[in-house]
Amino acid sequence: MPEDRTEQPHIVTCTAPVNIAVIKYWGKRNEDIILPINSSLSVTLHQDQLKTTTTVATSRSFQEDRIWLNGKEEDITHPRLQSCLREIRRLARKRRNDGDSGVDSASLSHKVHICSVNNFPTAAGLASSAAGFACLVYSLARVFGVEGELSGIARQGSGSACRSMYGGFVQWIMGNKEDGKDSLAQQVEPETHWPELRILVLVASAERKPVGSTSGMQTSVKTSCLLKHRAESVVPGRMVEMTEAIRKKDFAAFAELTMKDSNQFHATCLDTYPPIFYLNHVSQQIISLVHRYNKHYGETRVAYTFDAGPNAVIFTLQQHVPEFVHMVQYFFPPETNGADFIKGLPVNCASLSEELKQGIGLEPMPKGINYIISTKAGPGPRVVEDPTQHLLLSDGFPKKTM
Amino acid sequence: MPEDRTEQPHIVTCTAPVNIAVIKYWGKRNEDIILPINSSLSVTLHQDQLKTTTTVATSRSFQEDRIWLNGKEEDITHPRLQSCLREIRRLARKRRNDGDSGVDSASLSHKVHICSVNNFPTAAGLASSAAGFACLVYSLARVFGVEGELSGIARQGSGSACRSMYGGFVQWIMGNKEDGKDSLAQQVEPETHWPELRILVLVASAERKPVGSTSGMQTSVKTSCLLKHRAESVVPGRMVEMTEAIRKKDFAAFAELTMKDSNQFHATCLDTYPPIFYLNHVSQQIISLVHRYNKHYGETRVAYTFDAGPNAVIFTLQQHVPEFVHMVQYFFPPETNGADFIKGLPVNCASLSEELKQGIGLEPMPKGINYIISTKAGPGPRVVEDPTQHLLLSDGFPKKTM
Repeated sequence: MPEDRTEQPHIVTCTAPVNIAVIKYWGKRNEDIILPINSSLSVTLHQDQLKTTTTVATSRSFQEDRIWLNGKEEDITHPRLQSCLREIRRLARKRRNDGDSGVDSASLSHKVHICSVNNFPTAAGLASSAAGFACLVYSLARVFGVEGELSGIARQGSGSACRSMYGGFVQWIMGNKEDGKDSLAQQVEPETHWPELRILVLVASAERKPVGSTSGMQTSVKTSCLLKHRAESVVPGRMVEMTEAIRKKDFAAFAELTMKDSNQFHATCLDTYPPIFYLNHVSQQIISLVHRYNKHYGETRVAYTFDAGPNAVIFTLQQHVPEFVHMVQYFFPPETNGADFIKGLPVNCASLSEELKQGIGLEPMPKGINYIISTKAGPGPRVVEDPTQHLLLSDGFPKKTM
Repeated sequence: MPEDRTEQPHIVTCTAPVNIAVIKYWGKRNEDIILPINSSLSVTLHQDQLKTTTTVATSRSFQEDRIWLNGKEEDITHPRLQSCLREIRRLARKRRNDGDSGVDSASLSHKVHICSVNNFPTAAGLASSAAGFACLVYSLARVFGVEGELSGIARQGSGSACRSMYGGFVQWIMGNKEDGKDSLAQQVEPETHWPELRILVLVASAERKPVGSTSGMQTSVKTSCLLKHRAESVVPGRMVEMTEAIRKKDFAAFAELTMKDSNQFHATCLDTYPPIFYLNHVSQQIISLVHRYNKHYGETRVAYTFDAGPNAVIFTLQQHVPEFVHMVQYFFPPETNGADFIKGLPVNCASLSEELKQGIGLEPMPKGINYIISTKAGPGPRVVEDPTQHLLLSDGFPKKTM
């Protein structure tokens, strides 16, 4: 990497994916450096459908660190942003001192400008902090010439961000050290491992903003005795089972454990005092629909999982996507006549048999679901080589006046 | 008791109360004789508002055991009805053999006619099986001259029925014998112990019939690891705490534990596979309302508890009833202009301050609650001395052709 002797900023742009946990993370044993009370496991979603793009620029001419998120300048002093910046700079300094890095001392002291956008609307209620912090850490690492293990830094931005540092199927091993050095993400299988697996994000119309996950999990850790039991006695066995199910591509095992773990996470939210509800009547209807669908066919073809928000994420195999999607559209008739209801990977047409509709036996619930994003497992963070994609101009400021 | 040498039936009428658990019973370790996986504790509701009335007649002229429930003849061969009949007759025989009873051998072999009604609509969705089996067992015992401990027999009709055999505050001790001889109800405090305590049943309009508690708890015992932990490690401590709170009339402690235990019960339902939902969006709104109300005043003035159905049961102290009831009426505006919205014990007028309405900050939810039954703790089963109250005519058949 050439030394940066000019005023011209050094600019890097990267993208990072969203991930969805199938063994849920809920509860920290250390709030400062974000150490979880249990391990978790997720599937990285494909960036063609859902991603964060972040440009980082460094220049000796910058007066201070600054950040713009989705078009608006935000407070760079946010403790978790500061953690990531501090840790990356520390690693860069260490590498330089070890003689491993091409980055000179000068550029290490440069301020950064960060600009980040999502390719999905914030209003969709998709947890964007995982992709956001993963992308931030990955981009900062590139700009400061840091390589190797980065998930421990992403973790300090947002716990689940560490899992967005890898593609495919990823576990976050809780670790047991006090300094968190062993609380890291690891790829279980790459995104190419299970090509038939499909993921549908059912974007629900939320009535009100739910309790945020940071404060929610704090209250749960303090008040829920079921959460403690889950973390200590249930999750360890489930991590093993889930890893096995993924390795063997055993969809029924994967699906059932995914549903059970989602339900148990929401059960611990209900056991929190005061209780936290993330599942509303639309979620309950989706859960019924999935169980009735599976029962109708006498096999587990579809699984749901819900995070700390109203959206459902559905796992199924490629061959079941068209029928299931059209069933969702039938039981949650959209406001418009269906145009734009299905986004992302194309979904083939399918007809629903009367037998199936009758077998499900639910009342349709109009407008419960805004739209569906059809996607699959995807790769981890990437560098964007095309300089026209930078979100910061060559002066290191965002393209539009924001 | 005079010997029954005539064809004239021997007729007894009794009433028994509904009870509402504050430490919940969910899960059996023995399905046949109904032994629970944990102890539970309930408040017996006053029979002025909610009761079952049962008339039992025996006569040598009756050809077979028969039963009429709420105006309709039902199948007497139901295994749990048979358990109660068999156990009462066994006890009567034992007492006669021991020379304790005035009942002769002849009347022991007589068939019974049973007629039972509730003073509340079945449509109210109030669990009537506890009051029903308590009343059946109490009446059968009277007619066959059986005295003493009867909760173990009521338990074999419907688990929670054993708690309806006593007034006031009642615990069902799970016991540990295989034959269930030590799985019995016991009064913790009589109904006179805490006169300020008030109970409001918020009768919700259910959209669909929920999963029945018998099959629900079977599935929970089979599939929920959180339920097992709750039963073994959480409930024992809560039984002690709850008994203490009641003895000391510590409303805040009583209320908080009541809410936590209701939430934990519903959490284990959600941890069941497939999950069971008893809390709908109206229940969630009531839960929010209660927590916001308590928060507004900076003290725990009101508690909720929910059983395996949509109704909320509210505990509060006398002085808070008017304001809370009117707040419920404000946030759940009834279909009519409020006539008949409040049933049972009279509720004084109250005005709601703007500050309170604003402080709660919820959107009113029209028609979520059908009506409120205002009641308090009450006594256990009673004999009705007035013969005009019998539900069976002197020929041993129901008054109306049903």
